Amino acid sequence: MLIAFGIFDGLTALDAVGPYEVLRMLPGAEVAWVSERPGPVHAPGRLSLLATHAYDEVEGCDVLVVPGGAGARQRVADAALLDWIRRMDATSAWTTSVCTGSLLLGAAGLLAGLDATTHWSATRTLETFGARYVPERVVRQGKIITAAGVSAGIDMALRLAALLTDDVTAQACQLRIEYDPQPPFDCGSVAKASAQVLAAAGG
Amino acid sequence: MLIAFGIFDGLTALDAVGPYEVLRMLPGAEVAWVSERPGPVHAPGRLSLLATHAYDEVEGCDVLVVPGGAGARQRVADAALLDWIRRMDATSAWTTSVCTGSLLLGAAGLLAGLDATTHWSATRTLETFGARYVPERVVRQGKIITAAGVSAGIDMALRLAALLTDDVTAQACQLRIEYDPQPPFDCGSVAKASAQVLAAAGG
Repeated sequence: MLIAFGIFDGLTALDAVGPYEVLRMLPGAEVAWVSERPGPVHAPGRLSLLATHAYDEVEGCDVLVVPGGAGARQRVADAALLDWIRRMDATSAWTTSVCTGSLLLGAAGLLAGLDATTHWSATRTLETFGARYVPERVVRQGKIITAAGVSAGIDMALRLAALLTDDVTAQACQLRIEYDPQPPFDCGSVAKASAQVLAAAGG
Repeated sequence: MLIAFGIFDGLTALDAVGPYEVLRMLPGAEVAWVSERPGPVHAPGRLSLLATHAYDEVEGCDVLVVPGGAGARQRVADAALLDWIRRMDATSAWTTSVCTGSLLLGAAGLLAGLDATTHWSATRTLETFGARYVPERVVRQGKIITAAGVSAGIDMALRLAALLTDDVTAQACQLRIEYDPQPPFDCGSVAKASAQVLAAAGG
């Protein structure tokens, strides 16, 4: 089972690394980190991930994961990336996005007429691609699953793990990453955050 | 404010990338990814992170973050790494670990007589270093903060963000990563998981 992550400069690393940490544990999982060319891909904060494959080195995949970040917003007209996303989607059992990765799925034409989610700051942009924004953390439409901002990729991946295997296997993944969240504040969505916090977060 | 991540082959990437995604957003934050030498550091699943600095290229830091993973368990006698951890701790305002990163803090002699936490599978090993294991998600003792397994690093980093700045700034970090967790199952700790799930997770 090949799990392909499409990565690019300016990605939000946690969008990819959250799902990776869950999905890599599944039986038979192999991971490919795919970009324009093999080699370093730069996230903010001096973090670089190494792409293992160029776009044309991956024939197809079972699971596609498209992360977001400022780099995703900048790539909604990147023909090579969008072509690769369409090509992977043509072969995949599951096509997924985290955060503003859904803008790339949308720009690739995969979300027209579908319910989808994204980071709270990108909901209007998502709708310009013909998707219907739904304020949920994980949205499934057929084989397409979109997740809300950044950390939502972990929740998405655990749901996907159950779809790919079974509940016990997915639950074991959750236990292995000790995902028993205890956030110190209850402000992780726009609906819960104060106006002051929303302003501080750039909303 | 320099935030130094000590990374090594066999780390669990989410242990580092969770806190990184929170702490990098704080005002004045700079990040260093530190290992034996600059260049690729390998996690499972073909994920490589690039170290930006060798141990001897970092004089000190404000925040030290030590991730865990199978590689951490293997490095509890790695003199160069433990020396570096002690040197960073001598300068840091905060010394932190995620998951089995606490074994490295313990092996460096920093947890003797202190309460601490770790991944649920490593609690006995943690106590061999003179720490008292506490089954909590985040444990603070003075300037040392240890987090439980993998995903607990996000909770730790948000608490640390509030200590480093203020509640509104930390809450804005939580909103920016849309950390409003909705795990699909309630099995993320040993206390909550069934015997079947615990067995499937290797416990």
